[in-house]
Amino acid sequence: MQVVVLECKAKAAGMIAVRLESGRITIRNERKPQRPGGFALIRLLAGGICNTDLELQRGYYNFAGTPGHEFVGEVVDSDDKAWIGRRVAGDINLACGHCDYCRRGLQRHCPTRTVLGIVRHPGAFREFLTLPEVNLHRLPDSISNEQAVFIEPLAAACQILDQVPIPPGEPVAVLGDGKLGLLIAQVLQAHGAATHHYGRHKEKLKISAAAGVATEVRRAKFPKSLYNFVVDATGSPQGLQQAVAMTAPLGKVIMKSTVHGTTAIAFAPIIVNEITLIGSRCGRFEPAIKLLKSGAIDVDNMISDRFPLSAAKQAFDRAGQKGVMKVLLDGG
Amino acid sequence: MQVVVLECKAKAAGMIAVRLESGRITIRNERKPQRPGGFALIRLLAGGICNTDLELQRGYYNFAGTPGHEFVGEVVDSDDKAWIGRRVAGDINLACGHCDYCRRGLQRHCPTRTVLGIVRHPGAFREFLTLPEVNLHRLPDSISNEQAVFIEPLAAACQILDQVPIPPGEPVAVLGDGKLGLLIAQVLQAHGAATHHYGRHKEKLKISAAAGVATEVRRAKFPKSLYNFVVDATGSPQGLQQAVAMTAPLGKVIMKSTVHGTTAIAFAPIIVNEITLIGSRCGRFEPAIKLLKSGAIDVDNMISDRFPLSAAKQAFDRAGQKGVMKVLLDGG
Repeated sequence: MQVVVLECKAKAAGMIAVRLESGRITIRNERKPQRPGGFALIRLLAGGICNTDLELQRGYYNFAGTPGHEFVGEVVDSDDKAWIGRRVAGDINLACGHCDYCRRGLQRHCPTRTVLGIVRHPGAFREFLTLPEVNLHRLPDSISNEQAVFIEPLAAACQILDQVPIPPGEPVAVLGDGKLGLLIAQVLQAHGAATHHYGRHKEKLKISAAAGVATEVRRAKFPKSLYNFVVDATGSPQGLQQAVAMTAPLGKVIMKSTVHGTTAIAFAPIIVNEITLIGSRCGRFEPAIKLLKSGAIDVDNMISDRFPLSAAKQAFDRAGQKGVMKVLLDGG
Repeated sequence: MQVVVLECKAKAAGMIAVRLESGRITIRNERKPQRPGGFALIRLLAGGICNTDLELQRGYYNFAGTPGHEFVGEVVDSDDKAWIGRRVAGDINLACGHCDYCRRGLQRHCPTRTVLGIVRHPGAFREFLTLPEVNLHRLPDSISNEQAVFIEPLAAACQILDQVPIPPGEPVAVLGDGKLGLLIAQVLQAHGAATHHYGRHKEKLKISAAAGVATEVRRAKFPKSLYNFVVDATGSPQGLQQAVAMTAPLGKVIMKSTVHGTTAIAFAPIIVNEITLIGSRCGRFEPAIKLLKSGAIDVDNMISDRFPLSAAKQAFDRAGQKGVMKVLLDGG
């Protein structure tokens, strides 16, 4: 009798989790994670597959574990009981809290940080996950679960404006019409920049065009030395060289494409024209939440498909197909 | 009789000029240049051979003409007669004066500019040269001709501080102990930065060490992610990758090496660590003249050799030898 009870308990404490190892996606039954002090236990409502997840699948970082860093969830347990029942998004960098970077409010660059679903902290593609309570952001009801999944990449798009002051009305070129490029173009347009979005897919560019962005399908013969600000979100090694060529003397290139391996670039024109190249990664969630709430950013049309967590393999396959934008994983 | 007089006149209006074409240095007799309105006619006192001159000799820019952009001269004719007899250095960029860049005081980036001895304006390695009067800087007597030749590269070193605010006391790494690296290390030290100069030549590093710079002979095992500011003045494609590796998250790399062709760089760490790469070229002459006058910069020990203008071929050969620093060409 006792044995049966124990089994029931084990089942009650179990959950399903996506596992990625050597490029293979599997679904595993796991114990629900223990919540350390200061951490919240969060039930997954929805997750989003990011290009970084596909890169992890291709073997980058030799990743083995549960992926997933774009998510919305509901807090089921926490030290501060006010969180319980709240719908939240969460900063993906888990910082030490006391190093030089953390003290300066730069937790995203804490040298001993772990990163949800990327570096030494199991990701969001499981029924329950844990994150420090300081990482949580409560979501307004007006943001749907589907929209909330975009907060993390939208924050990465907003980071550009935290790094580079772009005057209102200033022409800015965005290269690449993938998910991140579409978010960036909309963010810059909402900021008031005269945004020109260059891409290869008429259908995708319709999303930024609807937000008032000037769009152009172009594969060659890009304008030369025209813009003071160019964002490379192509995700390709050629994109950066193209971005540099489009940048005016003393202009700035914001680099958003985490291309692995080395990229060959002609640096002489960068030095002669005194161009600045700015690496740009994650951002603060606050402006992203504010923008989503304002309705200025269309993410609904960026959702290509959705799958239950148990069909993560099919979801990853779908996300890797040409022309597919965001693929969602539904939690419990 | 008349024939003889004409010949004498031709000789009086003639001069010798260095010519560089297809990598070959020759000495030619030429007519003294005509001075257009707004230009000064300048008699060369001394010139300096820069690495850029050696690169032009190697065939970059398909250069054919008189090289030379580091010089000190005496004005022999000008519209504003107050210049006549003055000892001058001169900005090497000849700008249009009315484009957007010129109007913003950024003549060095005027898109239709010519550049003394580099782009469509004959250089300083001739007995007489011309430059717009607006390009001239009068030199104080306390700066010798030999020192004045360094004003142009010293201005390029000072440009770093015009582009990047470096807090006093901030540790800064300078990579490369060539002529430009030595000037940069001394400029940053004079500015108050805690300058660490990494090079390969003990003898050369003695010059920056004498200025109070911390110096280190090192070919491998450089410190990782240590500095918020790193200057690459190695002149080598590997230097930039090294500089990036030494830069802390959110740090800045100032790129001073005009390396031709393409350089393969791993951009993922630049993006993950949000590092900024800043192309840096020429600078304002004013701070360079001020620094030379103050005695804070030792250039005297950077002069390896000097030759008369007529021995320019030997001077270029000497300048290209390993370990040789500045080679001067004496004017008339």
